[in-house]
Amino acid sequence: MDTPCLVVDLSTVDRNIARFQQLAEAAGLKTRPHIKTHKLPLMARRQIEAGAIGITCQKVGEAEVMADAGIEDILITYNILGLDKLDRLAALARRCRLSVTCDNETVAQGLSDRFANEAEPLPVLIECDTGAARCGVQSPEEALALARRIHALPGLRLDGLMTYPPMRGSHEVDQWLARARDLLKAEGLPCPVISNGGTPNLGDLAEFRSATEHRAGTYIYNDRSLIAMGACGAEDCAARLHATVISRPAADRAIIDAGSKALTSDLLGLPDYGLIVEAPEARIVGLSEEHGHIDLTGSGWDPQVGDEITIIPNHVCVVSNLFDAVILRHPDGRLESVPVAARGKVR
Amino acid sequence: MDTPCLVVDLSTVDRNIARFQQLAEAAGLKTRPHIKTHKLPLMARRQIEAGAIGITCQKVGEAEVMADAGIEDILITYNILGLDKLDRLAALARRCRLSVTCDNETVAQGLSDRFANEAEPLPVLIECDTGAARCGVQSPEEALALARRIHALPGLRLDGLMTYPPMRGSHEVDQWLARARDLLKAEGLPCPVISNGGTPNLGDLAEFRSATEHRAGTYIYNDRSLIAMGACGAEDCAARLHATVISRPAADRAIIDAGSKALTSDLLGLPDYGLIVEAPEARIVGLSEEHGHIDLTGSGWDPQVGDEITIIPNHVCVVSNLFDAVILRHPDGRLESVPVAARGKVR
Repeated sequence: MDTPCLVVDLSTVDRNIARFQQLAEAAGLKTRPHIKTHKLPLMARRQIEAGAIGITCQKVGEAEVMADAGIEDILITYNILGLDKLDRLAALARRCRLSVTCDNETVAQGLSDRFANEAEPLPVLIECDTGAARCGVQSPEEALALARRIHALPGLRLDGLMTYPPMRGSHEVDQWLARARDLLKAEGLPCPVISNGGTPNLGDLAEFRSATEHRAGTYIYNDRSLIAMGACGAEDCAARLHATVISRPAADRAIIDAGSKALTSDLLGLPDYGLIVEAPEARIVGLSEEHGHIDLTGSGWDPQVGDEITIIPNHVCVVSNLFDAVILRHPDGRLESVPVAARGKVR
Repeated sequence: MDTPCLVVDLSTVDRNIARFQQLAEAAGLKTRPHIKTHKLPLMARRQIEAGAIGITCQKVGEAEVMADAGIEDILITYNILGLDKLDRLAALARRCRLSVTCDNETVAQGLSDRFANEAEPLPVLIECDTGAARCGVQSPEEALALARRIHALPGLRLDGLMTYPPMRGSHEVDQWLARARDLLKAEGLPCPVISNGGTPNLGDLAEFRSATEHRAGTYIYNDRSLIAMGACGAEDCAARLHATVISRPAADRAIIDAGSKALTSDLLGLPDYGLIVEAPEARIVGLSEEHGHIDLTGSGWDPQVGDEITIIPNHVCVVSNLFDAVILRHPDGRLESVPVAARGKVR
């Protein structure tokens, strides 16, 4: 193979998709996979064919690519601001079932101003900070206050609650959401959707009794960070970076043709920059932009210049975002290069 | 502005280009800028117009983009392996003055096999590890041994030495290179070019008495890591990421629309993920893929949802590689979006 390249095994992908669908159905949850990991319309279609009700995107540009590819139900889990993005959002809403999230009045007002004269109101979920300390209203009472506001604003339709939960404390997340839902219902405010998310917590889905749907992204490929969390095994990692040893300058050092522009510097708590499948004891201790530095000490491994190696990335979502195309391995062994259509859609 | 976006100030770029050219000329060195930072033909042209003898690329794909844009002299500072890349290299050599580097016999043999029947031999520089512990022969004696081999191989023309030096120890680097050069000359082997590199050492150029040319990349934009090293000031940082505050979930927390897919996780020794120009005391303490987490504690800053902020990236080369297009700010204030033509050329 011409390296570095990212190779995605479709049999593993399909097994991962089936597993998420099965876990969610067993917990009475609908699935709405997040496309941030694969950024590929063909993967979104596989997820929907397996039973997903729609997809999740983080950026308007990602949603546009997916709508172009015929995906019909898209939730953008993001506070969307700015006239340009709001115009694109209105155009999108005319050609798919679109919903968004919001955690503050400024964003709600902007959405309302833009959608007040559209034929259909925009469904809006309130983003809730249930412990992950990113976006989100800080308490069920704040959720209620924002729900009242959104319900009153023209052009918007209150659609429920959304959270990106912390890694731990699934029971507390559920209690938070249930309390917010009950506050809304007590005032007669609608709350048809409660959208929870995450791959690390797929073993906890039964705990999310208040949720109606689950968004997960990374599960489709899996990665080394999820192995470290016990969420999957190496055999579940569908996307692997192929690299070539280009230098053996010293007995304890090998250099490969994949650096931070292929693997990224994401550590996610791991001690080095990727798991070498052929030699798990050898460590990728450093990355230049186009070189990976492997410390062979104690690994018993003696790779030669020209050898191809395979790496399970620490964080596959950011790796997939660096490649204009990925190589699919079909179940019959056939390889196919496909463009990562929603790559680099930062806006 | 529609954020996140990377805005490049052309007046600052031209000042940075002029400064490198001036420093190099004062030290009797030619310049061969590395395009890894900007990945833009228009910037390469500006560098050549200012006096550079050619450019440096890290990947064959980058060199192809630059040759397509009419750049005539290209050094690829990389061990190139594999039939596909070697064919592309041969095609490139027919349309520009191309040279490459090599630190081992396997790579030398592969280059020779491919170029033996070409009309012109391929100029090859020996990559020397003068302390950076990446690629490169480990001693002047090893350089001599590989030089003999390359000199004897058909299709190749020994062109001298190349190093990517360590951050410190410029005098030792120079002594290393001088000794290798003297060993080659004592055997009558050619050594017309001694190519040194790096931006952090631009203040040391006079120490590199053995070098004939200097490759620097990051200097054209500069970044926070170079400010921290004392190599430039904030006013020299030409490329800045513009982001928008999209959430103020708590008094001490602001969330922006730029995460690791815009800023990358590169720390380069810095304590957090970028310098906020409007509030240097506020800290970007964490990055999700599409969210930046700002800790406002002690900053006295109270940004509002919708506010646009400006960030000097820790490591600008990897940031520029994430954007399909950057926005140029011309000296008259005009803004122009240009595609980052060599972005994502991983092979």
